[in-house]
Amino acid sequence: MADVKSKASVLLVGGGSVGAIAALNLETGKQAAVTIVCRSNFNAVSQNGYNIKSCDHGKINNWKPTKVLNAIPKASEGSTFDYIVCVTKNVPDVPPSLSDLIRPAVVPGKTVIVLIQNGLNIEKPLIAAYPQNIVLSGVSLIGANEPSPGHIDQDFPDTLFIGAFANPNLSPQTQKAAAEDFVSRYSAGGKTQCSLDTRVDWTRWRKLVYNSCLNSICAITDLDTGRIRLADDAVAHLVRPAMLEIVAAAKAAGHELPATVVDDMIEMDPLDMYLPPSMLSDTRKGNFIEYENILGEPLREGEKLGVPMPTLRVLYYLCQAIQWKNKELRGLVSIPPKGNYVT
Amino acid sequence: MADVKSKASVLLVGGGSVGAIAALNLETGKQAAVTIVCRSNFNAVSQNGYNIKSCDHGKINNWKPTKVLNAIPKASEGSTFDYIVCVTKNVPDVPPSLSDLIRPAVVPGKTVIVLIQNGLNIEKPLIAAYPQNIVLSGVSLIGANEPSPGHIDQDFPDTLFIGAFANPNLSPQTQKAAAEDFVSRYSAGGKTQCSLDTRVDWTRWRKLVYNSCLNSICAITDLDTGRIRLADDAVAHLVRPAMLEIVAAAKAAGHELPATVVDDMIEMDPLDMYLPPSMLSDTRKGNFIEYENILGEPLREGEKLGVPMPTLRVLYYLCQAIQWKNKELRGLVSIPPKGNYVT
Repeated sequence: MADVKSKASVLLVGGGSVGAIAALNLETGKQAAVTIVCRSNFNAVSQNGYNIKSCDHGKINNWKPTKVLNAIPKASEGSTFDYIVCVTKNVPDVPPSLSDLIRPAVVPGKTVIVLIQNGLNIEKPLIAAYPQNIVLSGVSLIGANEPSPGHIDQDFPDTLFIGAFANPNLSPQTQKAAAEDFVSRYSAGGKTQCSLDTRVDWTRWRKLVYNSCLNSICAITDLDTGRIRLADDAVAHLVRPAMLEIVAAAKAAGHELPATVVDDMIEMDPLDMYLPPSMLSDTRKGNFIEYENILGEPLREGEKLGVPMPTLRVLYYLCQAIQWKNKELRGLVSIPPKGNYVT
Repeated sequence: MADVKSKASVLLVGGGSVGAIAALNLETGKQAAVTIVCRSNFNAVSQNGYNIKSCDHGKINNWKPTKVLNAIPKASEGSTFDYIVCVTKNVPDVPPSLSDLIRPAVVPGKTVIVLIQNGLNIEKPLIAAYPQNIVLSGVSLIGANEPSPGHIDQDFPDTLFIGAFANPNLSPQTQKAAAEDFVSRYSAGGKTQCSLDTRVDWTRWRKLVYNSCLNSICAITDLDTGRIRLADDAVAHLVRPAMLEIVAAAKAAGHELPATVVDDMIEMDPLDMYLPPSMLSDTRKGNFIEYENILGEPLREGEKLGVPMPTLRVLYYLCQAIQWKNKELRGLVSIPPKGNYVT
């Protein structure tokens, strides 16, 4: 079926490392024409394209998707898309919200919105804003980064799980069909593992075991995933207890994770890769961290269900304080002037 | 009584901001001759003396105590002292231990050792190493720092509480007499509040309410004591719960702290002073932090007594990981080489 389709038009919002590989996968299959929206790397990408070193695709230089933009195009001016794929960071505590950001391009009741983003409950504001639109859940296990603008290194294969977030206003069949269509287009190039996931909520909780815990602890301590395993008792007394709290919250929410998940996640990145997970990369660059969706939502969800989460609570409020510091640095909060003291 | 005494000989180990003000207080009263041991600022202090801006003493330039050294003098070579006053950082997880450091100058059964240092159980290794020596407990509420070598700014008055750590090998009377003698010499200059404290253990626990909690949270988040009060929910969900755990541990250890202590400690530093507490100053300078005595000992003490300390536990292991990072940077731990990956 996939090979007789006409190309879908895809607006890909977020032209960083994950977005670039997603665009490449979609265009490689020739079943999608991708318009990518870049921000900080727009000049580099629009002039020279992407320079990619990828475990899935090999070396590709000066590659561009169909179109490179630096702002969300307007549906009202004729730019309509079958899909809007969001691979930006999702930082709900810093405006604009994702639903406001993509608003100009959304055709109510038509555009399928795909969230390839971390964290829990990320679909809720989108379904609230666009109650007649299908919202797909993408859980990506890729390892990729952008050491300089437009230069993408992909270390870990792109493994993408796709399913629909349950939108109560739409029929399950329509939502499932959209997920199947997206998967077939994304997979058509044959360079990636993209599959329909009928229990994508479970997959999302599973990834939280890594993200809520290892990711946040690495960000707070400024240690990568290799070093945190070497640093005295950090795994035994921080990572493991935090992960067990997520496993308990997932179970309370109806998602039983396998007994091996904790060790699997601790050992996921090879130790001697010394990989900084996403929130650590963000704190090192002075970027905002996705702690609300990655840590706050599972904490609130678990505590609402009566699960004690003492480790996650402390990690969450530490991340909040670290985010606040960054907000102050960027002028989003202001503080009283310094008093007149000796020093 | 104090004014007829001959001068006591004092070895003051640690010539940073707190040590410099202690030396100045002791020499101002003319009842002590201070030999100060400096490390990183030895060249500055031995050549130009201290340049001090002090709320207690005013401006004093090019001031030197009786003697400035850069190493612990040896009792075996004739350098004996009535007191060894230790105002260094106390970092038991990084050698040398304090008892080893001062060993050359200690005359067993004679030298009185004074610990003007933070944290709990700091006397234990010293009494174990020198079972016949008096060890005095000094709890200092000074606010001072050293913005450049030999330049000392003192913002907060030096309020020093002195009492004896109970050494079971010695008579309480002898120990109390030593504490009284030290207090009278330290107070003789009249510029400072130094008092005999018959419940100095209580005072030490009281200070831990600030140090275990605010100090460590500021160090972990890289926020000063003003900003941590402004940063969203940090006080409500981190500082206050942590402080209440210390209050509960103190109570279990027999030290009932007043109901107001939590708010007193939160508001101790004026908000608009934006004061970095000691561990934050240390992390910013890349120095080791005193987290074992400040955080680890009260945590172990409290948990041993059955007090739940979930907040402190997380803070403790985060500090341990941060300390490990610094140990790696300084070559005290080594890690496997980086593997051969794309990036």
